[in-house]
Amino acid sequence: MKRPVASCPGVSVQQGGQRAVLRALPEEVPVALVFNGETQAVMMASPCDLEDFAAGFALGEGIVQRIDQIEAIEVVTHDHGIEAQMELTPDAAKALHLRRRAMTGPVGCGLCGIDSLDQAIRPLPHLSGELRLTHEAVAGATEALRAHQPLHDQTHGTHAAGFLTADGTIALVREDVGRHNALDKLIGALARTGIDPASGAMVLTSRVSVELIQKAAFAGCPVLIAVSAPTALALRQADQAGITLAAFARGGGFDLYSHPHRIQTGATDVA
Amino acid sequence: MKRPVASCPGVSVQQGGQRAVLRALPEEVPVALVFNGETQAVMMASPCDLEDFAAGFALGEGIVQRIDQIEAIEVVTHDHGIEAQMELTPDAAKALHLRRRAMTGPVGCGLCGIDSLDQAIRPLPHLSGELRLTHEAVAGATEALRAHQPLHDQTHGTHAAGFLTADGTIALVREDVGRHNALDKLIGALARTGIDPASGAMVLTSRVSVELIQKAAFAGCPVLIAVSAPTALALRQADQAGITLAAFARGGGFDLYSHPHRIQTGATDVA
Repeated sequence: MKRPVASCPGVSVQQGGQRAVLRALPEEVPVALVFNGETQAVMMASPCDLEDFAAGFALGEGIVQRIDQIEAIEVVTHDHGIEAQMELTPDAAKALHLRRRAMTGPVGCGLCGIDSLDQAIRPLPHLSGELRLTHEAVAGATEALRAHQPLHDQTHGTHAAGFLTADGTIALVREDVGRHNALDKLIGALARTGIDPASGAMVLTSRVSVELIQKAAFAGCPVLIAVSAPTALALRQADQAGITLAAFARGGGFDLYSHPHRIQTGATDVA
Repeated sequence: MKRPVASCPGVSVQQGGQRAVLRALPEEVPVALVFNGETQAVMMASPCDLEDFAAGFALGEGIVQRIDQIEAIEVVTHDHGIEAQMELTPDAAKALHLRRRAMTGPVGCGLCGIDSLDQAIRPLPHLSGELRLTHEAVAGATEALRAHQPLHDQTHGTHAAGFLTADGTIALVREDVGRHNALDKLIGALARTGIDPASGAMVLTSRVSVELIQKAAFAGCPVLIAVSAPTALALRQADQAGITLAAFARGGGFDLYSHPHRIQTGATDVA
């Protein structure tokens, strides 16, 4: 398989002059996600942890509800990209087949825009559960994640998604050139290592758009912590799905938007 | 139409305590791109400059070669999103129809992954032309762009794409929650205002993945300047398409990767 980092020659131009440099840049490869022989999507991704990516895509997109509905994952490298081939159990395969027939599909669907728009925002499961995190754990989450990003250390061009346990440690991290892919890989890695997503928070190096809320909801993770801004729609969807959303988590502070009861701030109101 | 910024209540938690805040966050709305009555794609986008978005998507994806192949653009707001309805000339409509029939489509295409992978990386036009930029203009481009990002000033959560003319000024800027959309909007705005993309550089607040190179190539812009890292694949595609790629453009310097002849560095080699 292609390595996720490539060494590329360039010229660094600074005020004092210029010099030839070799930069470590992230690779980006087309990855086809194939279920029982049919391609569901082709994504540009970092070529690493692709079994996790495949499983996490299936879970986060609601194609399977449980990891044991995926009977096999095989990653096959071709000239122009990589196939992640999954075999689903008969019941999951049948459900996907029915969904594909019912689905208009976001690209080239040949139906009118109104039908497609109605399907753009998926109904989400509602998460509850007893998870509680201290405000110290949330405040330190993105800095803790930063210590586990070897691809980013090399390339300065990749995102990461990590899993923060209730005691405030980062248990698992996955990286990718795409922020959606990084979250998919984390969701897959949690499922494949048997860690319950309901037992902690997902920590993201990115902004939070609505698809990330959707993936977390389908994966069953009740808390999302992001270093950057959420969109207003992501916030409304988090609210509906019962997800606690903390954003702008940096410099020891954060903004708390939805379902704040899961974060024990222990802080005095200063408003 | 929905406004691109929403005021959202939250709680700011800092070490000294917590207080209620109202944050301006970017809106995000499903936008269906509809050509002659058929939906080509649904994208989550900032609801502003959507005529530019529609035209730029059509140009950057190679659906039309010239803006005059779009006879009309109408933006229609529905309950669950917005339709950008375009009417193409008969020749462009016929070409799209043939392309749709030939296309496997990246989602739910029902074909094997290998066929889909072969179509993931599109052959690009090769750009030449006489454009030259000074290294001062390139070095100052992202800072110059920063002065034209009102959505980002409010929300800290949007990307921008700007057009830098040969004399080093930012002539046009478009913003969006998505970096691809911001570039689509810029491409559309250039076409609709009659500015030749070959006459300057596109300046991006983001990293450079391969799709951005593809869009710039189809739009006919020979220079791309980005504040963050490129992927290795983006670099190879820029090289093939004859595009000059400058990245890590910040702090008065930049890295130059492909076709450096368009940038007059005037600097001494210090290697």
